Amino acid sequence: MSETWSQAEFERHLRKIGAERYHDKHPFHIRLHEGKLDQGQVQAWVLNRFYYQKSIPLKDASLMGRAEDIALRREWITRIIDHDGAKPGEGGIERWLILAEGVGLDRSYVMSCAGVLPATRFACDAYIRFVREKSLLEAIASSLTELFAPDLHKTRIAALLEHYPFANDKTLSYFRKRLTQAPDDVEFGLAYVLREARSREQQELCLAALRFKTDVLWTQLDALNHAYVTPGLIPPGAFAPGDRR
Amino acid sequence: MSETWSQAEFERHLRKIGAERYHDKHPFHIRLHEGKLDQGQVQAWVLNRFYYQKSIPLKDASLMGRAEDIALRREWITRIIDHDGAKPGEGGIERWLILAEGVGLDRSYVMSCAGVLPATRFACDAYIRFVREKSLLEAIASSLTELFAPDLHKTRIAALLEHYPFANDKTLSYFRKRLTQAPDDVEFGLAYVLREARSREQQELCLAALRFKTDVLWTQLDALNHAYVTPGLIPPGAFAPGDRR
Repeated sequence: MSETWSQAEFERHLRKIGAERYHDKHPFHIRLHEGKLDQGQVQAWVLNRFYYQKSIPLKDASLMGRAEDIALRREWITRIIDHDGAKPGEGGIERWLILAEGVGLDRSYVMSCAGVLPATRFACDAYIRFVREKSLLEAIASSLTELFAPDLHKTRIAALLEHYPFANDKTLSYFRKRLTQAPDDVEFGLAYVLREARSREQQELCLAALRFKTDVLWTQLDALNHAYVTPGLIPPGAFAPGDRR
Repeated sequence: MSETWSQAEFERHLRKIGAERYHDKHPFHIRLHEGKLDQGQVQAWVLNRFYYQKSIPLKDASLMGRAEDIALRREWITRIIDHDGAKPGEGGIERWLILAEGVGLDRSYVMSCAGVLPATRFACDAYIRFVREKSLLEAIASSLTELFAPDLHKTRIAALLEHYPFANDKTLSYFRKRLTQAPDDVEFGLAYVLREARSREQQELCLAALRFKTDVLWTQLDALNHAYVTPGLIPPGAFAPGDRR
């Protein structure tokens, strides 16, 4: 096996994956940020992305359930609380539902996940499985796409406000909140991965885990793009704009 | 719960799913059969479909591993032997590799699964999980897409022979073999499902399982179509025609 990278060099390899494969470079995202999606296409994005949001606390709780280290659990638990909220009406999932209503979707339809693309389910379920079954180190490494997210959220807020009538302080509260949450989370996750990956083999596993996660995100946009933009072929049973809100 | 359907009516519901959602209706399949795919697109199909072929004995062995009924295991084991072959150089997976070489792919590259689309992995892995985790009845019901396959294979052989120079008795041996294998398999599977689904609730679960399976197949063609036909956006790291054969 090759030599272990220094932490600085290892971090450079991790960040390179973001530069090459993070989903901000996907045409569907670019269209979203350029204001080129119509209402139905934005709805499809919000609806499918809800399934991803809904999966996050499941993967985080599964991760914690395997962490012997109490310090890690005390840190990681804030992610679950951020997403679930401490009580009804709070949390990131609730804020995503407010966005969903803002783009004209019915809250209970969104929560049912009935119209979600099969590809979205397969990708998000693969992510939950990955976190449950791989090493704790790989599970944490797979969360490091957050390294690339704050910039994306900042650009997104400005872009949505500029282009879409549904965008306002209330509907965009999910993204605003993430601006402050994600950097705290990622600082801990990055430090953990840099410290705990002690061999080159472990470092390579972390890179593969992060690459896997970029695949999970990219695949979701591929599916949205195919179903709702080009060629616009909606799979049997999936959400059809206009049919259901 | 509603009334249990008669076996005849239940079978009608199962077959209706094929009529509505089986992947022979997907534009990518239609292009394939009309001779409209170029060599790179056919290669992408063969390469990705190899990952599906490779998954089949895993799901069948997992299914058998949960079947208390010795008669079921004695029946089901032929599926594994059909796919794996009794010795090197035999079996459906080997025949698929012969097809892969026939379309100009490198055998070891195909076997590495390096260039497979992430969406293909997510979908096939979801299928293996489904079979491992759902009830035995649902697992068997999910195999019933074979009800719709023999016709497809018959059409495919004729279509490929007509349109593609790579098509001959040797390269198409996988499909020829399936013409006789699939009907035997499906007869047993269908009889099992019709007999063992004794309540309406179980019957509905079987329909959901078969729908799930059509999603697994459809999603794979969506991903191929998006990456290699329209818009032709190959995800980072996936097979690019011309790069690797």
